[in-house]
Amino acid sequence: MSDTIKTRLESLRKIMKENGVSAYYINTADFHNSEYVSEYFKVREYFSGFTGSNGSLVIMQEEAGLWTDGRYFVQAEKELSGSGIDLYKMGEEGVPTIEEFIEKKLGNGDIFAFDGRTVTAARGKVFRKIAKKKGFSLEVKNDLTEEIFERPAFPLSKAEVLSNELAGETALSKIKRLRERLKKEGAASIFITSLDDIMWLFNIRGNDVEFNPVLMSYAYISMESAYLFIQKGSVTDELKDAMDKAAVLIKDYDDVNKFLKNEDFSKGDVLLDPNQVNYISYKRIKKNAEVIEMRNPTTEMKAVKNETEKANMRKIYLKDSVQLTRFIREITENIGKVPMTEMSVSDRLEEYRREIPEFRDLSFTTISAYGANAAMMHYAPSDENPVEIKAEHMLLIDSGGQYNGGTTDVTRTIVMGELTEEEKKCFTLTACSMLNLLNVKFLYGCTGRNLDIIARERMWNEGMDYKCGTGHGVGYILNVHEGPQNIRWKAVENEAVLEEGMDVSDEPGVYKAGKFGIRTENILLVKKGVHTDDGQFMEFENLTMVPIDDRGIDRSIMSERELSYYIAYQTAVCAALKDSLSEDEYNWVRKYAGIA
Amino acid sequence: MSDTIKTRLESLRKIMKENGVSAYYINTADFHNSEYVSEYFKVREYFSGFTGSNGSLVIMQEEAGLWTDGRYFVQAEKELSGSGIDLYKMGEEGVPTIEEFIEKKLGNGDIFAFDGRTVTAARGKVFRKIAKKKGFSLEVKNDLTEEIFERPAFPLSKAEVLSNELAGETALSKIKRLRERLKKEGAASIFITSLDDIMWLFNIRGNDVEFNPVLMSYAYISMESAYLFIQKGSVTDELKDAMDKAAVLIKDYDDVNKFLKNEDFSKGDVLLDPNQVNYISYKRIKKNAEVIEMRNPTTEMKAVKNETEKANMRKIYLKDSVQLTRFIREITENIGKVPMTEMSVSDRLEEYRREIPEFRDLSFTTISAYGANAAMMHYAPSDENPVEIKAEHMLLIDSGGQYNGGTTDVTRTIVMGELTEEEKKCFTLTACSMLNLLNVKFLYGCTGRNLDIIARERMWNEGMDYKCGTGHGVGYILNVHEGPQNIRWKAVENEAVLEEGMDVSDEPGVYKAGKFGIRTENILLVKKGVHTDDGQFMEFENLTMVPIDDRGIDRSIMSERELSYYIAYQTAVCAALKDSLSEDEYNWVRKYAGIA
Repeated sequence: MSDTIKTRLESLRKIMKENGVSAYYINTADFHNSEYVSEYFKVREYFSGFTGSNGSLVIMQEEAGLWTDGRYFVQAEKELSGSGIDLYKMGEEGVPTIEEFIEKKLGNGDIFAFDGRTVTAARGKVFRKIAKKKGFSLEVKNDLTEEIFERPAFPLSKAEVLSNELAGETALSKIKRLRERLKKEGAASIFITSLDDIMWLFNIRGNDVEFNPVLMSYAYISMESAYLFIQKGSVTDELKDAMDKAAVLIKDYDDVNKFLKNEDFSKGDVLLDPNQVNYISYKRIKKNAEVIEMRNPTTEMKAVKNETEKANMRKIYLKDSVQLTRFIREITENIGKVPMTEMSVSDRLEEYRREIPEFRDLSFTTISAYGANAAMMHYAPSDENPVEIKAEHMLLIDSGGQYNGGTTDVTRTIVMGELTEEEKKCFTLTACSMLNLLNVKFLYGCTGRNLDIIARERMWNEGMDYKCGTGHGVGYILNVHEGPQNIRWKAVENEAVLEEGMDVSDEPGVYKAGKFGIRTENILLVKKGVHTDDGQFMEFENLTMVPIDDRGIDRSIMSERELSYYIAYQTAVCAALKDSLSEDEYNWVRKYAGIA
Repeated sequence: MSDTIKTRLESLRKIMKENGVSAYYINTADFHNSEYVSEYFKVREYFSGFTGSNGSLVIMQEEAGLWTDGRYFVQAEKELSGSGIDLYKMGEEGVPTIEEFIEKKLGNGDIFAFDGRTVTAARGKVFRKIAKKKGFSLEVKNDLTEEIFERPAFPLSKAEVLSNELAGETALSKIKRLRERLKKEGAASIFITSLDDIMWLFNIRGNDVEFNPVLMSYAYISMESAYLFIQKGSVTDELKDAMDKAAVLIKDYDDVNKFLKNEDFSKGDVLLDPNQVNYISYKRIKKNAEVIEMRNPTTEMKAVKNETEKANMRKIYLKDSVQLTRFIREITENIGKVPMTEMSVSDRLEEYRREIPEFRDLSFTTISAYGANAAMMHYAPSDENPVEIKAEHMLLIDSGGQYNGGTTDVTRTIVMGELTEEEKKCFTLTACSMLNLLNVKFLYGCTGRNLDIIARERMWNEGMDYKCGTGHGVGYILNVHEGPQNIRWKAVENEAVLEEGMDVSDEPGVYKAGKFGIRTENILLVKKGVHTDDGQFMEFENLTMVPIDDRGIDRSIMSERELSYYIAYQTAVCAALKDSLSEDEYNWVRKYAGIA
């Protein structure tokens, strides 16, 4: 492989030379800054051999570097070996960022090039600033890899129109609300490129990206008109009808930049999100228009689930929970009798999910991590390194499905045999942390930053911490990670108030490198609590109806309150599951939950 | 009084007319944006009759308005009555801010005037922006009240030099550290106007402002020189010696603006805090220098107490606690036998504090609030309205002293008779909230925003809230309120990480309008906790050694953990007090604390 990579880099360097390019930057992104990208966009992987989900490559004549984060240091070292590409470990002390690298290496007369369609406006502006300071120039219009990397087909699927039973609000109504928001922000129009925002706005879905039911698309909404830019092959009669009703004009996906070039923006400012819109589109708009840069209002609107969405989610989360519970029963009963590997149980769980009529797809690659593997937060099992599961230690399963009715995300750590005292303590603390956050009550106006310590307090008391956020927003038949809401303690830009109808994951954990990993994850819905003289209080509704493995629990280290939360949770979950289970299954689950 | 005010306003309006001024703005501040100001600066009070600590007056020919906050609505209404001045209730819906008022009322050709020495640069810049937008001009150099308001003498006291036993670090060393910080920020010098920062930096104190042991002063520190601008009458031989040793040049207070005019700033940027420096000084510097605007590094440096300061604080807090405890004993034993009023007990407490050899002054006006009066957070007793204390309800005392060894601030709510069930519940919740925060452990990097919910959670669970922050920083022989640290849940600009050595108050409460008010306030020191694989943990050390009134506590509504915190706290406090108390007193306090 490393020879192949060397050959590819050689070809690219030749083209760079012909074009006078000193450094070429390849990141991991499509034209829409999506979290997951299709094969068509895996240029960085092609030129580096590194297969992780996050990595950026900078190629110069005499050297090349790949930047990735802590999740991938081991994997990247292995995959880059022999390629001549240096690994830059992001976040490690003394390791320069890409910006610092560029600033140091490039100077007067140099050309720094990248495919401007795959870099956000915000990033592009940072590069532009450095270029100005150091006297080199940016070249962002050409894809230098074109002649070397034979891209697979551009992702293409048919548009699906969400019924009102699934969407709960017409596209027409959403567009009307968006226009009101635009007026409030002083904008006359908005250019949207984030695929999930576009799907939400027009009540459509697709299958262009694995795990994410989206279509490659752009949208432009002014006070008078609404445009959906979409590939011809995605258009169906149903879509035409639906867009007609919503007064939306369908245009060709490839015509978007031509449109931006010719559109008359004189009626007022264009709102756009510089962290979503790509640099090429951004530059095109800036030529003709005054721009308001801020988070897309659709991101917040989409995050607040309506009553229909919430009702569907409750149903789908129950179905998803029933199947996950059945799966847990099967593997806990079969362990020691039937051989199983991380991969085989992952496949088996997918079969369980596929039995649900509303199933569309998984919502992300299942994390099935046994024993010490679970200490790696983003571990994924592979066929090349099969890991056998035995009747000892714990198995961590983080998984979810896309359904017509919701997107799920749930983690359970399953006890496979006798646990050590330390494992049991950590398992119990994790359950307490999850339950303490689930049961918190807070004044309206709080963000996830105010609440994070409620989950973490129990760990911090013991000198323990998990090195990730406590929770993220979850889409509705959309991306499994969505903003703006989250539960984190560290400062972030643009924190979002937890609004009624937003959902967040609640997923504390304990990760002991080389030993074990534990995570318990539920999805919670923000709802109104009491309204008193002192204001509007908020609380959470639990959506995930999967019991916690009682064999991992040491009740003696729970506080009275935590024990009551625990019993209440296990009891409520069993009651919720009851009608969907056989008597036999129900008896089993009550025992598993420790309330039989 | 209202006739006097009318006459004064008439005179001012005449001068305004002569000067072509359409609107004149008078705020409550000295030249240093101090929280407390001396009589010399009480111009707003003179022209409005309003005596509250926060209020701004805008005078036009046909109308005048006074802006104040919720603490003072009732008082302001009374004091403004008949004066013709309209009351603008800040924060109430539909009430314009001063900025909105100005923007609406003034236009092309108007002149908006104020004494630029009493308005911060940040505020001045906001006014300038509005002026530019609306086409009116600013006039900031003249004090139009000069000929009407005969100011009392400008505050003046002798400089005191802190011994090394009190300061723990020489001025020379502090200046050296400050210069290092300046280099880090890319600045060549700093102009400091906040009095407490200046006192801290030079290890001096004074008595120019009630409650605050400061001197009217400015400071300018470059890499080569350090200047202290101070009134001639404040200078002593001791000060001269001390400043000599610290290589500080003493200049006359009144020469500061001349200095700023003539100084050569070509060596590099001047750092200044636009929320502290007044608009006149700011404009003067901006003429000759490049400016870096940020929070004074001295504010953070001062907030981190050194080992000497901490040792002194521990001693002084114990002495202060002993006297407060004796006071509590006296009034709880005398109630029903000896007549007492809010004011008489406040005076009595001051007598107790004066017995401490290191006593200098009170650190703020004592809040002595009986019964329903305690529901007003900033209530102060008065001789005009004496309120008798009876053997029923509760008495809230929020008080503190300035000592050579520290500044104290402590609140206790004292049970004067039988309590209702509601009062007891609220008293207990308040104690739990205070104790839960005192006992929290957190990862280094947290700010008060992360921690606030630990105190508030107990209240929020019951649909209750207190409408103020949970805590503020406290100075060392300096202002009782100091930043940058605090404990608040709402977003603030420029949040400060809680560093080892910072102190904060922990003062949750319950305020039921017309019924009662409860607050329990301790001062805590941030210290290092365990260091584990997961990082550096932090915790609090308690400084306030005053028991909580056990007669207010309903142990049945405490969690097991809260009860253990409570018993541990009461026991530790009694143990700390033991050596300072007589056997009789010690027996009493153990009973009062409920651990006898």
